[in-house]
Order: sequence, then structure tokens, then C-alpha cells
Amino acid sequence: MMERSIEQLARTVKAAAAAMYVCPTARKNRLLRAIATRLRSAMPAVLAANAEDLEAARGAGLAGVLLDRLTLNEVRLTQMARGVRDVIGLPDPVGEITETRKRPNGLKITRVRVPLGAVGIIYEARPNVTVDAAVLCLKAGNAVLLRGGSEAIRTNTALVRVLRGALEEVGLPADAVGFVESTDREAVRQMLKQDRSLDVIIPRGSEQLIRFIQEQSSVPVIAHGEGNCHVYVDASADLAMAEEIVVNAKTQRPSVCNAAEKLLIHRAVAAKGLPRIIARLRSAGVEVRGDERTRAIVPDVIAAVGEDWEKEYLDLIMAVRVVDDVEAAITHINVHGSHHSDAIVTRTKRNADRFLRSVDSAAVYVNASTRFTDGYEFGLGAEIGISTQKLHARGPMGLVELTSTKFVVQGRGQIRR
Amino acid sequence: MMERSIEQLARTVKAAAAAMYVCPTARKNRLLRAIATRLRSAMPAVLAANAEDLEAARGAGLAGVLLDRLTLNEVRLTQMARGVRDVIGLPDPVGEITETRKRPNGLKITRVRVPLGAVGIIYEARPNVTVDAAVLCLKAGNAVLLRGGSEAIRTNTALVRVLRGALEEVGLPADAVGFVESTDREAVRQMLKQDRSLDVIIPRGSEQLIRFIQEQSSVPVIAHGEGNCHVYVDASADLAMAEEIVVNAKTQRPSVCNAAEKLLIHRAVAAKGLPRIIARLRSAGVEVRGDERTRAIVPDVIAAVGEDWEKEYLDLIMAVRVVDDVEAAITHINVHGSHHSDAIVTRTKRNADRFLRSVDSAAVYVNASTRFTDGYEFGLGAEIGISTQKLHARGPMGLVELTSTKFVVQGRGQIRR
Repeated sequence: MMERSIEQLARTVKAAAAAMYVCPTARKNRLLRAIATRLRSAMPAVLAANAEDLEAARGAGLAGVLLDRLTLNEVRLTQMARGVRDVIGLPDPVGEITETRKRPNGLKITRVRVPLGAVGIIYEARPNVTVDAAVLCLKAGNAVLLRGGSEAIRTNTALVRVLRGALEEVGLPADAVGFVESTDREAVRQMLKQDRSLDVIIPRGSEQLIRFIQEQSSVPVIAHGEGNCHVYVDASADLAMAEEIVVNAKTQRPSVCNAAEKLLIHRAVAAKGLPRIIARLRSAGVEVRGDERTRAIVPDVIAAVGEDWEKEYLDLIMAVRVVDDVEAAITHINVHGSHHSDAIVTRTKRNADRFLRSVDSAAVYVNASTRFTDGYEFGLGAEIGISTQKLHARGPMGLVELTSTKFVVQGRGQIRR
Repeated sequence: MMERSIEQLARTVKAAAAAMYVCPTARKNRLLRAIATRLRSAMPAVLAANAEDLEAARGAGLAGVLLDRLTLNEVRLTQMARGVRDVIGLPDPVGEITETRKRPNGLKITRVRVPLGAVGIIYEARPNVTVDAAVLCLKAGNAVLLRGGSEAIRTNTALVRVLRGALEEVGLPADAVGFVESTDREAVRQMLKQDRSLDVIIPRGSEQLIRFIQEQSSVPVIAHGEGNCHVYVDASADLAMAEEIVVNAKTQRPSVCNAAEKLLIHRAVAAKGLPRIIARLRSAGVEVRGDERTRAIVPDVIAAVGEDWEKEYLDLIMAVRVVDDVEAAITHINVHGSHHSDAIVTRTKRNADRFLRSVDSAAVYVNASTRFTDGYEFGLGAEIGISTQKLHARGPMGLVELTSTKFVVQGRGQIRR
């Protein structure tokens, strides 16, 4: 029964994708303006739905960060509408010619950017993803099938009404935004089987959710994995700069994926550098854990255990390890890291080059904080997430990564001999 | 037991990938030269192993095309060695800078091509894939884990010895080419779980094998799907040109994925065009099947049934349908096709543009045969296959598609405010 309905839903989204596929930029921007306008006019309805979700969540014992993530208010809705308007200003990647070739037989071959088609988004508590993700998909000419968390079901329903109303207003099929109403995990499982209708699934949420989706999906997945990010302080580092970078990367916003979780430091500067850096971290409220060599220098540091090196804390915790050289730092990062964002602080060009070349992460830094891994900070515009996988999209994933390409071949009757 | 050994094997390949990741172009080309040379010197050993495989295959009742696919001889081995030398001449995509940005805060951000890492290749009978696929992966800086068909196990073992010998000769780790010796399906299943070691799996083989892999794999998959390709003859088509294109697309090599399987023709030219085209197809040995409107024009055509429209025949069979206009042709192709290669024959620019824009396939053609969808014909060089999926690689998949990118961020102490 449900299998049937998710399958049908995915098919209606795929059918609507055909209209989005050829939709001109001007009309897509009109759609985005209509969404922004309706977000304002629908504010009372959305906030009322959100209040019901919040009441149910409190009743179920939800509190703290999770409750905050679920909460919408006028300020957040206004920000959401502003985010939509920002996307209007971004260039439309669809139709861009990325390559042109003229073959000896006279064939003219171009490679052209086209929408992906039908995109499935599976996400958890934050209701802003409903609008942010849908708007990016629509601007890139895609239809979208949304499946949000059960806590936000009423809020998401109200937001989807805004999106579908705007689609109808500009003469596009409302089904270009589909919404899975069932909050059952089984609905997710069914969604993962719709490879005949969905071209890609983008999960946003806990490591556990993403893992489940990667294992179960027959639809291709673009995963936004965790960030176990490192700062390595080399022997020749400017220690004052290193201190600023480590403290910023760890503490400026510890709950996000590009925050640093580990500090590696060259043994030649550990005795000089560590006491100051650790003191600064502690004064910012950071719990410091360390290996034996770190604890030999700052004895009251908590002993790090094996699993510390693999962990994404997303919290005010940092583990410190003293390493022998840049090579040891690179190996540690490639083996224990999550291939997200990793930095070296050094004044030695040779070591910088070696680090940048050998560390196999989405973003590698020299002499800067890992906190810059972000679509806006990189100048790419709004992002749907930060991909830590290597296929298709790596790093901040914006409009371009929501497209594919096709080869357009123009001839005058050429046949193959 | 096996689970353990495939896991260990994948880990050794991943470890070797680190050496390939930073391997300079000159050394990779030396490796390829060593492979080509050793293919010649190892010819007797490879042919002896192949003879054993062929004997076993005949004993098991294998015959015809399947036996031919399995067969190596001096000519084929020489071609294989020449193919390796061709790849030496292709530009190394690794290290290419694809984007450069300078941010207002002074950060210099470049996007650089890097190897994917460890690539799993799962393939069936043809032993040439062992060398062709491995060589492309190695040139793009990847390590590779190969799993070939059981029929070719002795031949593949001999070819892998050539590859590993060449790696050692140039001072690279032999484990950059790993080989799954077990011919059990369970070994494939285990390989699909090695997402901690393998960055991507590329299956080559039957639709059934690919389907199994897509459903079971937690490693990202790049699928090379089937080709249910179309030629649409528009009302304004040059009918002589249409005839040549249809016959070429269908008959020049019917067993490959870019051969046309379906002919769509505008009703205004069906009565004039179909009798000649069908006669030409038949004289080339093609069995023609048709819808009612086709049979009204050429009565002795076999009636096409529903599933004909979805089928990839890979044989001298073609199904014909009369359509009302270009829009009907586009819809038929998008709904029933496999999104591989589809062509329009027309003299109306408006219809050509509409077709090229709206048909959602890896390659779309105007006035040319679909048979050109191929890495060499497109001027891209050797290919590892033709992808019909939309993520990462679409169309002929060459060296560039065997790479990823990373962001390299260079600062002077920048932190995020």
C-alpha cells in the first residue's frame, strides 16, 4: 500500500521534472520571487503549524538544541525568504556550454549543462531545509521529492504548501515539489528504491541516517559526511598565527562540520607551542585530550584514547597529538580523518606543497582556518551541503553540482564507417 | 573467512592508492610503457592461460559469441599493448586547476583535479577489460581492485601478473592492482561492502550484473547501462540522409550500446519514407517490427508488442513507430528510452533545437548516426565505458571522469569572524 503510494509520488515528481528541465531562467526566477513573497504572506500559517510541532515535541520530551532546531519565528522566516532572494541572483548553470569540439568528420560536439532531473532530499529536524534545498533544486531546473523529519511534519506541510502554490502561480506543475507525508521509516526505505523515477538522493542529517541511506539505496546518493578536521602546526609555523587558527577553527562554531576536532603539532615546536595553545583553548571552554607526548608537556591534559582520533565531537573538545614530521601528519590525517577540511600552518613552502598535494580531503588549507569550507565563503553561493565523497560533488555543493551534462552532436548526415 | 580476505585485499589496494595519488606523470607513463612491453614478452604465458580457460569453457558448453569474447590471440594481445601505448599519449588530468578564485579576505582558492583513489572494477567475460580498465585507472593516479568473470580466471591471473610486475619494475607498489581470485558471487557481495577502502565501483557487464551491484553496493557505483537508442525522422527530413543514418545506426555494429534499436517517423513522411527504409533494413538482414500505423504502410512488418519499446535488442532487430510530431517523439524517447544516444533527422532548426534541448540523454544528435557515442569518436581518447547515469560521468567515461577535485585554500593566517 505505502510502497505503491511512494512509487506513484516519485512518478508524479519525475513527470513534473520534464517541465522543469526546459524551464527558462526568467521563469525559474519568477518562481523564486513568488516563493519569497508567499513565505511572508503565509507566515501566520507556518508559525501556527510550527507551534503545533513544538508543542508535540515538548510533549515527547524534546529539549535544548533539538527543540531550537525545530523552532521557526519571524526572524528565521524572514532569513529564509532572504535566502530565496539570494538564489535569484545566482547564475543559472543550465544551458552553459562546458566544452566544444569540432571533429575531423565535421561533427560539432558540445557538452551542455542540464538539470539532474528528479532529486530526493531526506532530512531530519530543521524545517528550513524544506525551503533551502527545494529552492536550489528548482533553480537548477530539477523537481524535488522531500522527506523531512517526523517532528517537523506540520511545519514542513505548511512550507510545502507555499512552494506548490508558487509553482502553480507561475504556471509550473505543483508536483515539481513532492512531499512524503508518511513519517514512517518504511517510507524512506521505499523512497530509496525509486531508481526508475529519482536521479539522485541527497541525505541531510545524522551519520546514522546517512549510513542507512547509503547501504539501502539503489538510487545514487550524494553523502554529506562528518567532519573530523585537523590543524597541523609544522616546525616552521608562526606560532602566534597557529594559535589564532587553532582557536578559531575549534571554537568559532564548534557544532558544524568544518570545525577542527584535532590538533597535530611537530615535536620540534610542541614544548614551546602547546602550553599557550592549550591555555587559550581552555580559556575558551575547550576540553583538551592528548597523547602521551602532549601529556609530557602539559601534564593535566586528559589522556586521549584510540577512538578519539576518529571522532567528530561537534563540541568543545579537541584531541592533540605530537607528530615527528609533516609526513606523519599527512598519514595521520589520511588514515584517521574524514576527508573534509584539513589545514597546515607552516612557513616552509616545500611542506605546504607536500601537505596540499598529499592530504586527500575535500578542502586542504595552508595558513588559514578550516572554518572557511562553505559555499558563501568560497564564493560559490548558497549550498545544499558539503560533500565528503569523491564522485560528482566534493566540498560545498551548490547549483552547478545540482546539474549534469549532456553531449549535443550536430551533423550534416555523418555516419560511422 | 572470505569476508575477511576481501576486506584485507581492499585495504592493501587503498594503501597502495596513497602512492599512486602523488605519482608524477612521467613515472605513470613509464609504468604504462613497462606494461606494454611485458604484454609482449608475456604473450606465451598469457596465451597458454587463455587456452586453459577456453578448454574449460568449451567443456562447460560455452560457444559462439561468448567463446569468442573469451578468446585472446597474438593479434588481440598486440592490440591490447597498442591500446596501452595510446593511453601514454593522453594528457594526465591530475593536477589540472579547474577554477581559481581570490576572495575579498585574501584567501586564494583553487580547485584541483586529483585521483579518485581506489577503484573497484567488476566485469564479466572479456579479459581485455583487465588491462584496458586497469591502465586507465593507473594513468589517472588510481589504484584498482579487479574482479573478472570466472571463465577468464586463468587469463586474468596471467594479465594481472603482467600489471603487478610492471608496477614493481618502476618502483610502485604491486598492490596498486589488486585481484579478487575467488570466482564466487559472494566475493562480489563482499567487495560491494568495502566502502571504507573503495571510492567507487564501476561494473562492466550484463544489465543483470549491473542491477545487482546497484542494489547491493554501499560503495558509490558508476553504471554503464543499456542503450535503447532512437532515430527520429522528422517531417522535413532529407529522406535520403535519414535512410543512411537509420541503416548505419542500426546495422554498422548491432551488438553495441550506441546502435539504434528504434525508428520513430513523422506521420507526414511515413508513407513516403518507410517503404524504402524498411527495404534497406531488411536487405541488411534486419527484422523489422512495427506499430499499427507502420503496418498500415508496410503490411508484412511483424507487429511490435508493448515491451518492444523498452528493449535493447543488441541484434539485427528494429521496431518502428509512426508519431504525430516532434513533441510525441521526444516524449516517447524520454519515457521508453534508456537515456543513452538519440538522434533527430530534420531540416527544421526549430525542431532540432527542441529535440536537442528536451531529450534527456547522455548524447543527443541532429542529422548524424548514434554510433558516434564513443570516447575516440568524440575526441576524448580511450574510455572505460559509456555512462548512462547522470552523476559524475555521463556519456563516454575517460581519464577525467576517473578523477575527482579538491579545493586548495592558501592563506596568510585568515580566521573566520
